[in-house]
Amino acid sequence: MIDKDDFGPITRNRRRATITSAKSETVKVRNGATAAASDLTSGPKTRESLTKALHCHKLQESMLSSASGFKNYRGILNWCVVMLVLSNARLFLENLLRYGILVDPIQVVSLFLKDPYSWPAACLVIVSNVFIFVALYTERKLAMGSISEKVGLLIYIFNLTVILCFPMVVVLKLPSITPVGGAFALGVYTILFLKLYSYKDVNRWCRERTQVKARSLSRSLSYDRRTYMYYFVFAPTLCYELNFPRSESIRMGFLLRRLFEMVGNCTLFNSVKPVFILQEMDYSRMTERLLRLAVPNHLIWLIFFYCFFHSSMNFVAELLRFGDREFYRDWWNSETITYFWQNWNIPVHKWCLRHFYKPLLRRGAGKLLSQSAVFFASAFFHEYLVSVPLRMFRLWAFMGMMAQLPLAWFVARFLRGNYGNAAVWLSLIIGQPIAVLMYVHDYYVTHCQDDPTITEAL
Amino acid sequence: MIDKDDFGPITRNRRRATITSAKSETVKVRNGATAAASDLTSGPKTRESLTKALHCHKLQESMLSSASGFKNYRGILNWCVVMLVLSNARLFLENLLRYGILVDPIQVVSLFLKDPYSWPAACLVIVSNVFIFVALYTERKLAMGSISEKVGLLIYIFNLTVILCFPMVVVLKLPSITPVGGAFALGVYTILFLKLYSYKDVNRWCRERTQVKARSLSRSLSYDRRTYMYYFVFAPTLCYELNFPRSESIRMGFLLRRLFEMVGNCTLFNSVKPVFILQEMDYSRMTERLLRLAVPNHLIWLIFFYCFFHSSMNFVAELLRFGDREFYRDWWNSETITYFWQNWNIPVHKWCLRHFYKPLLRRGAGKLLSQSAVFFASAFFHEYLVSVPLRMFRLWAFMGMMAQLPLAWFVARFLRGNYGNAAVWLSLIIGQPIAVLMYVHDYYVTHCQDDPTITEAL
Repeated sequence: MIDKDDFGPITRNRRRATITSAKSETVKVRNGATAAASDLTSGPKTRESLTKALHCHKLQESMLSSASGFKNYRGILNWCVVMLVLSNARLFLENLLRYGILVDPIQVVSLFLKDPYSWPAACLVIVSNVFIFVALYTERKLAMGSISEKVGLLIYIFNLTVILCFPMVVVLKLPSITPVGGAFALGVYTILFLKLYSYKDVNRWCRERTQVKARSLSRSLSYDRRTYMYYFVFAPTLCYELNFPRSESIRMGFLLRRLFEMVGNCTLFNSVKPVFILQEMDYSRMTERLLRLAVPNHLIWLIFFYCFFHSSMNFVAELLRFGDREFYRDWWNSETITYFWQNWNIPVHKWCLRHFYKPLLRRGAGKLLSQSAVFFASAFFHEYLVSVPLRMFRLWAFMGMMAQLPLAWFVARFLRGNYGNAAVWLSLIIGQPIAVLMYVHDYYVTHCQDDPTITEAL
Repeated sequence: MIDKDDFGPITRNRRRATITSAKSETVKVRNGATAAASDLTSGPKTRESLTKALHCHKLQESMLSSASGFKNYRGILNWCVVMLVLSNARLFLENLLRYGILVDPIQVVSLFLKDPYSWPAACLVIVSNVFIFVALYTERKLAMGSISEKVGLLIYIFNLTVILCFPMVVVLKLPSITPVGGAFALGVYTILFLKLYSYKDVNRWCRERTQVKARSLSRSLSYDRRTYMYYFVFAPTLCYELNFPRSESIRMGFLLRRLFEMVGNCTLFNSVKPVFILQEMDYSRMTERLLRLAVPNHLIWLIFFYCFFHSSMNFVAELLRFGDREFYRDWWNSETITYFWQNWNIPVHKWCLRHFYKPLLRRGAGKLLSQSAVFFASAFFHEYLVSVPLRMFRLWAFMGMMAQLPLAWFVARFLRGNYGNAAVWLSLIIGQPIAVLMYVHDYYVTHCQDDPTITEAL
């Protein structure tokens, strides 16, 4: 039944080289249909390959053991996407069949506008152009030497202060602005504040470096400067630079994929929303609610992250041929809280490093103090963006951010590797809904308790 | 407010080297608390670092874009584990509070035994020792030269045939064996069949290579041979080898972690089970049931995979100091169906390659024919392990396996990269429950429809 001739000592030396090369090929080619072919040597078997067949085991760890050092889990990410799409497609279809389209366009618009004929948030955003022009004009005067550095700095400080205070006052005083509209406008102004602050710093650094050159340049390029300023305002970065790296061309396929993702994620929001709303209003049993709220809230945050930091920012960058697409780094692998905060939002992190942390260090502040100051500023902006639109000053967001400091110390001190990573995930999954629940509870108590229509609608 | 002196041209040349080394450090050190420190240069700023500050963007892709080539998603795996544990902990607690412990020990035992005083499945497993001794004795006689190769081969063929047929007949004829007990016994016999087949092949290869040496060795080591045979029977591999690689010592921490995982996964099974059972029996609307069944079924399969292929096999290997822990490869990244089947179950894949596919190729069969033959054999064993314990011959498992062949062709032909990976996941998530649902439906119709107690219990 089995012929012995296969194992005879035929052409021993000639084969040796072939086997060695086949071996190295096996190591390189792993995925795809070709792996099967390279894994197997056809033809008559020699003594060398027989020895290989006899020893088919070697000392090695399993891939899922941390000792193996294996880290390629791209497929798990795809699994998450497939599972998310599958389970939400079912939920979406069910909801669609049972309730019809939940988020109708008019309802979406009514989140931004109470009265469709007055657009306070949009007007606020349009007004922001004034501050851009003030910065441009100041910079031009400074470059020409018409005003001194000190006067320029004063104008900047005044301009930047107004950027933060003006929308706050408008949102607090104008009752026709909805919380969502207010948050949107305040977000735009905060981004503008950070951008203009960076603009001011970078221009000053440039003047200090090449005073003569910059002056002659600025005079000749005053028109281009305005265009470039608006390019900076729309570019997905907070850090000003004299020559942004540009990509070669707009890839239409890339643009369409990002657009498709944004649309797809909106339907995901639609299907997650009912779960979210049904569960957030019964505030009688907080702890149970919290656990129920945690998972959908976390999923919404993840979808938001992908939609904003990957799809939208890449979409805008592709349109503007903006070259630097590092809007986030691998925060999902973070083993410390610090690593997470340094890597999940690169535009803000880069700005903080360049215009806040490093200047503080240069002025002689210690590392711990500077880090705490950055967290403090971040906590301030979180509170600013949440409290003002809701017209409630409860400091939950502020405290949530400040609580990161002892938490970061704890995780870095006691947990390592995958355990540290799990702790970071847990703090995200559990920590966020606590803050959200606090605001929802307070907002509900303040605004909705006596209004039966809202209670019913929610 | 801001002092110019910081930007003065101090010690320009001395600093250049420091900056370069700091830069390379930033690239290397990424994770952990030290990243913050290396990312920032303290002390007075020089012109070089000012230039660096002015150019803070560079051409690069986002990490989630496939163009970036970034593949480290270890954190996503941890996220899955955290989410699974969190959502199941809640479900487990809820079920525990509402229904008490669902899987009580007596119920588990009753899955294996109908009558606690007769243990047919356990007896079957004990009887399997006879076949091991037949193989040992035959091999000894062959090594000593008492019987010819032809006679030995005939004894082996007889022994192996009986290993497959004997338990099948027992399970089909003995009504006291439950489906779970029968599947367990048949699984043990199938594993033994594959192991003894490998034992036969390897010993023959050895005899052919060094006939004189093996004979003298086998005579002196007949006692050790028996011990080694049992080591092979319990070792987590199907391929026999004369000298298995051994690890240096038993790591107690590793052993305990694997044990903890196995216990933890059992509670996970407990919490997934009610979902599974509540939904599997209403067979009126197949398609909707299928989608509802898909996700819990898939989760159970994933937990089973981890529990069996990682925790249990590593546990046994650690106990036996068995060195080769490659029980699976990175099938989660597979972009073709073929890659999945080659990498999710390495012991079986290795056996098929060594004792079935390669011998077929050596005997002159084509690649496609040999591959199909492997799939055919695999389909046979799938059917054997499902149909016999259920006492139903419906060929669903067989057809499910054979359907992989055209599916593999389709995915390899039309889908690439992440799309191919998503297709593999979809085939796993959707394909499996179809087969499961078929058997559940048929089993229900055959056995339970007229028995009101079983219908109620399920």
